[in-house]
Amino acid sequence: MSTPIDKKFEEITISSQPIFEGRVISVHVDTVQLPNGAMSTREIVRHPGAVAVLALLDDRMLVVEQYRKPLERSQIEIPAGKLEPGEDPAEAAKRELEEETGYRCANLKHLSSFYTSPGFSDEILHLYVAEHLVEGNIHLDEDEFLECEAITLEQAQQYIREQRISDAKTVAAVYAWQLYKLTGRF
Amino acid sequence: MSTPIDKKFEEITISSQPIFEGRVISVHVDTVQLPNGAMSTREIVRHPGAVAVLALLDDRMLVVEQYRKPLERSQIEIPAGKLEPGEDPAEAAKRELEEETGYRCANLKHLSSFYTSPGFSDEILHLYVAEHLVEGNIHLDEDEFLECEAITLEQAQQYIREQRISDAKTVAAVYAWQLYKLTGRF
Repeated sequence: MSTPIDKKFEEITISSQPIFEGRVISVHVDTVQLPNGAMSTREIVRHPGAVAVLALLDDRMLVVEQYRKPLERSQIEIPAGKLEPGEDPAEAAKRELEEETGYRCANLKHLSSFYTSPGFSDEILHLYVAEHLVEGNIHLDEDEFLECEAITLEQAQQYIREQRISDAKTVAAVYAWQLYKLTGRF
Repeated sequence: MSTPIDKKFEEITISSQPIFEGRVISVHVDTVQLPNGAMSTREIVRHPGAVAVLALLDDRMLVVEQYRKPLERSQIEIPAGKLEPGEDPAEAAKRELEEETGYRCANLKHLSSFYTSPGFSDEILHLYVAEHLVEGNIHLDEDEFLECEAITLEQAQQYIREQRISDAKTVAAVYAWQLYKLTGRF
């Protein structure tokens, strides 16, 4: 019997030690048996998953500026947020878009889903495109402080050079937007 | 005196509780004062940072397949690895490229650097492009098991659709490669 392709080089869990259960993440350390029989450990951060939206208003995209405590500075990013338990990612994306920017979108297009850091975390990010936006009201979470603006592709690329935009999802979204402008396709 | 642009909506650390010091990551929980004076907590994972390489052999890019314990399956990704303490990112990228693929590159071009998950982690990933590769020898870490192959852009896009490629750095690298093919520029 051959190994399924997605189990190549599988690391078998020998034991799993819970370390931390937080509001957002949990952490555990697995002792694993490697393909050669040797033992090692893997430090793993569990995350509920997240959504993000490349929201286009004609020739501009919506971004939000917020403080990112792990970096100790504010950053400009596309609207994004964590999945609630059991929440459909497309619904979560619509919810976050409206909460953070005030804009609503009836039909989001799924662009890609990717693991942000598969070496230590299971966080997956679902990226959507929103066009034909309808203006509504911003309503932030009580511990959320941010400012929304709409920027051109050239401004986005300038912000990337200045590192005011410097997160994986927004960099990926700007690439996707640039490709869309060149090819007409997402 | 106005607030520096990168301190907008700053969250002041009131206290910081260490949770875990691992081989790769460390975890702490900060109690913070929000811009409106209210208190909250932030769960933060510290990471040494990482490098990744879009390595091009004519019309193909080098990828490695390896088991990702947090996802409990193997994945196809561009060559990548953690920074050693004090290591220059470009040197680390050359090192990881040679360790994982056997190929050497004298001059890497820096493509972008991004935070993989700025909501909970300070991990930064430095992405490089390598061309004009010279064949050498693969030499993996003792707890590293992986397989290298060279794939076309069409194969990479197929792997993304099949989710055999599904990590942020490889998805970003494939976008960058596609843009390069369309515009001649990275």
